[in-house]
Amino acid sequence: MEIEPIRWSDGTLMLLDQTRLPLEQVTVEITRYEDAVLAICTMQVRGAPAIGVTAAYAMALAAGQIDAGVNGRDEFLSQLRRAAGEIGAARPTAVNLGWAVQKQMELAESVGSAAEIGSRLLREAQRIHQQDVAINRQMGGHGQDLMPDGGAVLTHCNTGALATAGFGTALGVIRAGWEAGKRFQVYNTETRPWLQGARLTSWEFQQLGIPSILLVDSAAGMLLSQGKISCVITGADRIAANGDTANKIGTYTLAVLAKENGVPFYVAAPTSTIDLSLPSGDKIQIEERPPHEVYQFQGSQTAPPGIEAINPSFDVTPNRYVSGIVTEAGVARPPYSESLMLAVKTGGV
Amino acid sequence: MEIEPIRWSDGTLMLLDQTRLPLEQVTVEITRYEDAVLAICTMQVRGAPAIGVTAAYAMALAAGQIDAGVNGRDEFLSQLRRAAGEIGAARPTAVNLGWAVQKQMELAESVGSAAEIGSRLLREAQRIHQQDVAINRQMGGHGQDLMPDGGAVLTHCNTGALATAGFGTALGVIRAGWEAGKRFQVYNTETRPWLQGARLTSWEFQQLGIPSILLVDSAAGMLLSQGKISCVITGADRIAANGDTANKIGTYTLAVLAKENGVPFYVAAPTSTIDLSLPSGDKIQIEERPPHEVYQFQGSQTAPPGIEAINPSFDVTPNRYVSGIVTEAGVARPPYSESLMLAVKTGGV
Repeated sequence: MEIEPIRWSDGTLMLLDQTRLPLEQVTVEITRYEDAVLAICTMQVRGAPAIGVTAAYAMALAAGQIDAGVNGRDEFLSQLRRAAGEIGAARPTAVNLGWAVQKQMELAESVGSAAEIGSRLLREAQRIHQQDVAINRQMGGHGQDLMPDGGAVLTHCNTGALATAGFGTALGVIRAGWEAGKRFQVYNTETRPWLQGARLTSWEFQQLGIPSILLVDSAAGMLLSQGKISCVITGADRIAANGDTANKIGTYTLAVLAKENGVPFYVAAPTSTIDLSLPSGDKIQIEERPPHEVYQFQGSQTAPPGIEAINPSFDVTPNRYVSGIVTEAGVARPPYSESLMLAVKTGGV
Repeated sequence: MEIEPIRWSDGTLMLLDQTRLPLEQVTVEITRYEDAVLAICTMQVRGAPAIGVTAAYAMALAAGQIDAGVNGRDEFLSQLRRAAGEIGAARPTAVNLGWAVQKQMELAESVGSAAEIGSRLLREAQRIHQQDVAINRQMGGHGQDLMPDGGAVLTHCNTGALATAGFGTALGVIRAGWEAGKRFQVYNTETRPWLQGARLTSWEFQQLGIPSILLVDSAAGMLLSQGKISCVITGADRIAANGDTANKIGTYTLAVLAKENGVPFYVAAPTSTIDLSLPSGDKIQIEERPPHEVYQFQGSQTAPPGIEAINPSFDVTPNRYVSGIVTEAGVARPPYSESLMLAVKTGGV
């Protein structure tokens, strides 16, 4: 079964609510851009590429909410720009969000008649949506060469169909390896505090019939030190021009552990995740989410009331730990300042 | 307030139930050794030194359950030996458990009259109990020199009063530093899957008035890479003769991250945790706990039903990552094969 996390049907954006998975499959129906912003903020939809696609649709919804008859084109664009600001600020780290909003805003500004903007943005959102799936399949094609035949692959967080418009990035590469006939064990971390690994990745592997073993984040080191892992592969939320990679908290740790144990560490992400405007990772803004996500579980307190907690959602892995970056344009290798620029030029986004 | 996790009163062993903390303070009253075994298995009492003290009392309870009048001395010892086998097998990794059981069995065998064995084992359990607190305070005295004045200390799992008979090992060293007037920030990991950090360590620091910040296990790497941590200190469940250290799952990861970022990594444990019979860490038996601890939370499923999970409770940190081992005999430094042998000779256990 193909997992469809995002669908558009008859004026409604339908999101598979990722806060309810895996025990319930609930679809959220969204007809206003504000509700799309809320769905991104509350992580009903998450994963950098999926957020990008959602934002593209949110821009189309926003355009539909502005009365093109009453307002002139300038006023229309001004109102759309305000909505774009809200959508773009829903979450800070994933570059795909800002990328999609900016792409849509530029398109809107290029359309002569305000009355046409809504339908043009919708068509573009649908194109981005379909293209994301195609790009993921291309990434899978390039990346599956890196997958072992025998041995084991370790992955972190969720980078599958749910994190994208379909198929997935790092999970898509794993899937492509499996579909190419390679056989290997998959290990996936639970990924605290949000348990994307336990809740979403385990579910996706189960749907795909790929055997995976769940572990707590801090058990990955033991597997790596015991020589049980052939390679590690994760997604990315933003990649700087030099290859420094922001991704789910814990990714840096896996990269260090991989290097220490002589195991390759790969990143898989579309070229839309590469931010050439940033020379290195130090300038990537890291989202700090509410502390209660750390000390509460399903509304009940796990730590004593009144304690302090930090909840950084991402970390930055310096390029020296990254063995290769799989994009739809191929596998970029160090030095990344050259290979990533080339990937962006030849990529399909 | 001093936390008393283990008390003996009028024939009853009273344990502060660590599965109910921090939201409830419930005392389990134990009068039969089988219930002490169960309390160790289900982690109502946990932490290597606390398990050792509990096992010493369990041996006294077992002796009290055998009718010395009916049975001869040989039969008495034979029955006690069976109980010792059950107590010693409650959990595999912490050396203190086997150490206490063996110490008590040897004592029992040295007593001429079966009628006296029970009271002798009880006195010895009380001595081990009191000595553990004294040893922890000595460790604090030696280890507090390693604590920074300013900066921050990172710790993992729970190694405080709750993990011992009182005061704590690694947490005791942190406390001793604080009591010596040093001021630093403490960071403590939540320690999945059992959340000993979130539930127990955060609670202990709160009781002690030492400011601590909770984080998910996989966020420690970010803090270390940002230069925010002055040193890392953890406890140990078993230390081989060469300094290889078995401790809570995730410890190896913190040690690698510390080394990678030029931060010292310390272990604090009484000399009873040092197992000179093991030349290195490869032979340490690692407890594999039930997988549901990973994919369930408070009885509710977090991952899809039917998935596979591993749940190793400990990992082994090779000696090359360990900057120093704090014992009651002082701070052992590499090469550990010499310094640990000396520590065991001069230690107070």
